[in-house]
Amino acid sequence: MCPHPGRTCERKTLSDTSTLIATLNYFHPLSEGVQEFLKKHAYRTSFLKGDLLLAAGQVCEHIYFIKKGSVRGFIKEGDKDITTWITAENELVTSIYGLSKKRPALENMQALEDCEMLTLTLADLENLYLQFPEFNIVTRKLLERYYQDAEGRAFIARLTNAENKYTQFLAKYGHLSNRIPLKYIASFLGMTLETLSRVRKRLSSKRA
Amino acid sequence: MCPHPGRTCERKTLSDTSTLIATLNYFHPLSEGVQEFLKKHAYRTSFLKGDLLLAAGQVCEHIYFIKKGSVRGFIKEGDKDITTWITAENELVTSIYGLSKKRPALENMQALEDCEMLTLTLADLENLYLQFPEFNIVTRKLLERYYQDAEGRAFIARLTNAENKYTQFLAKYGHLSNRIPLKYIASFLGMTLETLSRVRKRLSSKRA
Repeated sequence: MCPHPGRTCERKTLSDTSTLIATLNYFHPLSEGVQEFLKKHAYRTSFLKGDLLLAAGQVCEHIYFIKKGSVRGFIKEGDKDITTWITAENELVTSIYGLSKKRPALENMQALEDCEMLTLTLADLENLYLQFPEFNIVTRKLLERYYQDAEGRAFIARLTNAENKYTQFLAKYGHLSNRIPLKYIASFLGMTLETLSRVRKRLSSKRA
Repeated sequence: MCPHPGRTCERKTLSDTSTLIATLNYFHPLSEGVQEFLKKHAYRTSFLKGDLLLAAGQVCEHIYFIKKGSVRGFIKEGDKDITTWITAENELVTSIYGLSKKRPALENMQALEDCEMLTLTLADLENLYLQFPEFNIVTRKLLERYYQDAEGRAFIARLTNAENKYTQFLAKYGHLSNRIPLKYIASFLGMTLETLSRVRKRLSSKRA
């Protein structure tokens, strides 16, 4: 049964796994068995702009590979909506907190644009580890990369100088800076929209 | 050659790996081969309170298992010293940013107390992956746990309400709250020492 009622889920879409396989291959060569498993079990899911992939407190049952679109993580503190990460094509998203432990997610995940995903259930992910022990090498390397990215995000979040924060953001997320609404970038950087606008104006006049 | 001149490094301390092995076994059973490798290659290193295990900008060549003591990560922004994580016995520390990539560390690592470590070079860690592919399962599970911890830290850092932040800190780091100087806890929580003291007083009067 499709786990996303109202969304387009298609199982067994053989041709669609090529970018996922190419991305994983970059970390470690995938065996034929793993590639066949992914072709058989990864299925397409689509989300519309604004849709929640997951609400905080829910247990995430899936890992998504973004084929098209962008996604953010965010937390709520009272009325405040605080963006914690932003990502786009060729990246994986899931609730890290629930990964392998089935714990309720700390964060919400929301589509920032219409999205097309390749989806794998976490049960299938566990089967991948069991049936193809070498997939642990792929995931060990993937987790190193994602953990390093998380360190980079934490580094930016910890800085207090607004211009410094935005410069670091551009170095890492420059490709998204004109695609993501400024209010989410401001929130990700822990500053007001007004401060971000001032910083952007100051930096562009420096460059001119 | 000892990589830490002036510190006590002892190679081949067979009896010292038991807590490391027990800790790793908790994630995934270690094969005899992995256990023998660790006994042969992990060596003791000691640091004095205040010592830097690593300075930001250096490439970290080691991963440390804390047998005794506590360690913090911190970044510098101008004159500001911002604590990014705090950890203690039975945990591993290294530069995540340099792991498998030999990139300069974003953060400094400092002993908060006199520390005894079991140290493994990253070259030996790579050999572990190559010689014992099942060690990738151990590390995949370890990285999931550490990445989840990083998410938890980021969650606390993103909150803006001081009492909320300190309550979350106590839930996760209660065992360290009377052991770590308050100035580092305040800095970790992104608040002044005065604010932290006020929050602690308010919470303890609520409990009384």
